[in-house]
Amino acid sequence: MKHLTSSHPHAATGNTIQLAHGSGGSMMQSLIRDVFVDAFGDSVQLEDAASLPIAGSGANPQDSLLSMSADSYVVQPLFFPGGDIGRIAVCGTVNDVATSGASPHALSVSFILEEGFPLGDLQRIVQSMAETAHEAGVSIVTGDTKVVGSGQADGVFINTTGIGILPAGRTPLTAQSIRPKDAIVLSGSLGDHGMCIMSQREELSFAADLHTDAAPLNHMMQDVLAAAPDTRCFRDPTRGGLASALNELADAAQVDMTVTEQSVPVKPVVQGACEMLGYDVFQVANEGKIIAIVPAEQADAACTAMQASPYGTDAVIIGTVEATQNKGSRTARVHVVNAFGAKRVMDTLVGEQLPRIC
Amino acid sequence: MKHLTSSHPHAATGNTIQLAHGSGGSMMQSLIRDVFVDAFGDSVQLEDAASLPIAGSGANPQDSLLSMSADSYVVQPLFFPGGDIGRIAVCGTVNDVATSGASPHALSVSFILEEGFPLGDLQRIVQSMAETAHEAGVSIVTGDTKVVGSGQADGVFINTTGIGILPAGRTPLTAQSIRPKDAIVLSGSLGDHGMCIMSQREELSFAADLHTDAAPLNHMMQDVLAAAPDTRCFRDPTRGGLASALNELADAAQVDMTVTEQSVPVKPVVQGACEMLGYDVFQVANEGKIIAIVPAEQADAACTAMQASPYGTDAVIIGTVEATQNKGSRTARVHVVNAFGAKRVMDTLVGEQLPRIC
Repeated sequence: MKHLTSSHPHAATGNTIQLAHGSGGSMMQSLIRDVFVDAFGDSVQLEDAASLPIAGSGANPQDSLLSMSADSYVVQPLFFPGGDIGRIAVCGTVNDVATSGASPHALSVSFILEEGFPLGDLQRIVQSMAETAHEAGVSIVTGDTKVVGSGQADGVFINTTGIGILPAGRTPLTAQSIRPKDAIVLSGSLGDHGMCIMSQREELSFAADLHTDAAPLNHMMQDVLAAAPDTRCFRDPTRGGLASALNELADAAQVDMTVTEQSVPVKPVVQGACEMLGYDVFQVANEGKIIAIVPAEQADAACTAMQASPYGTDAVIIGTVEATQNKGSRTARVHVVNAFGAKRVMDTLVGEQLPRIC
Repeated sequence: MKHLTSSHPHAATGNTIQLAHGSGGSMMQSLIRDVFVDAFGDSVQLEDAASLPIAGSGANPQDSLLSMSADSYVVQPLFFPGGDIGRIAVCGTVNDVATSGASPHALSVSFILEEGFPLGDLQRIVQSMAETAHEAGVSIVTGDTKVVGSGQADGVFINTTGIGILPAGRTPLTAQSIRPKDAIVLSGSLGDHGMCIMSQREELSFAADLHTDAAPLNHMMQDVLAAAPDTRCFRDPTRGGLASALNELADAAQVDMTVTEQSVPVKPVVQGACEMLGYDVFQVANEGKIIAIVPAEQADAACTAMQASPYGTDAVIIGTVEATQNKGSRTARVHVVNAFGAKRVMDTLVGEQLPRIC
């Protein structure tokens, strides 16, 4: 604690965990940097999935790599239009594993259940996980169940951890490979999942018209890699939305980015909910969208590959990567240009706007 | 739900989750069978770790296998003599991966934090995890953090998922390979972890004399495999204790087992706490002990290998495997013989005796 408060001003804003530490925004980045990376060291990889050699396998270093990603899911409510906590728990981890370029292969599933949780709800969630795993083509191979007393958890929390295989000869996709002039391709409309959840909680009259986009995108990503083989990297814009995803990528690659606001697909009902509740759709979570950063000359091919998937019919090129204007600085790397040509910063979420969105 | 209540009498005892569903005893076995295996199908492996071919790696089927195990940790209190939730979260998963015969290689670590949780406690837990991972020789490679509101969780819950590699040519150890006349070897005294936790909660006057045994046993297991190469299987007697572990092994292998009560090491302070609080030490959780089932002629070698490890100095042969007397029946496979030659059943835990022990 002394170390934390003395050397890391961000974390020193409080001595306790706040909701914003889980938001996907800047406070979560501080926590990861100041607490986890500080203790666990360089073995912790900050991409959505870690890539590791299959040590001891007798394989030579040119051979396959393993990709591993873990996420806990605490979304509330548990059931909502188009999905449930189980579907998100499978999709989220499958998609994170796939962002490295790997084919997801197996999942572990761990439940923390609150005493008194309805067995019927658990069965419904487990059935949804089984169906989503089938849709993604992954196997659920192991798991765990813990039960805590009534009032010590909130219904059910789920952890899924996934592993995948990177084909021999393919290096893991990483944000560091992003280059100026690359295109930013988005697989579809923004904000569907986040506004679905928030409208359920707020009991908006049009809540039933908002559906989560939760979907397993691994096959679509493989199709993009086949069509645009020099794809730099993928990122799924979950907590913190497009804004966090692009700012993290731009920071990692030390580049700037500009997004054309008009090009970004947002459904009218989502736009309406954002305006009513006061959210910036760029900061709202998605569970079935992928960003691909690709060389400009492969952007159309990547876009076409996405459009051929049922999960990417609205795919578009939304912006471009540029050489950085502010080397070393951590702020204002990503901008949005509106219909009138006015440019503004696409801010990363700072506080917490959407607790327990996934 | 209809399916569950109509066809599975065990699960039908209640329509909601009870603490005993997480106990490691018979109700948890019913939940796994009736809900999880029913939905997830045969891909779910019921050993402590799942073993999977490294598909798509180009390796031939004789080559390495991957071992994967997942566990969530909800122990309360978070800090106790000899350890904390972080140490248990690393040891438990490392040990489960190692029971397959694999060398644990990497861990993911996922936190669910309650708003208001002290950052200093989180740092202390994370530091303990880093030290324990170093002790075990595994890397923490990826992770996740979620925050829920005050009152929606109890401080901190941790999930760790581990992967390891089974050397080429070695098949995963499995309970099915147990044979009559095999020896049961136990690496040390029983009940240390469970009674440490319970005495902390009950504020017993001698609570400080009870220490958790939490330890990473992967290197010791590798040493046993080198000394006793035909070792049938390992099992770590965590939730449900020795009784659950042996009953599960006996059921899986369709054999009987007899344990000599006098041979089982139990520290006097643990025995005293068990008597005071009314626990059967055979059903109490351990976090730093391993059971090895080995051919009789390799039992001494296995025992000696354990004794050479700092975590196995009290290792002993505690019993033998026998051909089953009751084919097909699920009860009364494991017996204990006391000092006077009297034989009794070693029962699996039915209800919940030690909630949130790990």
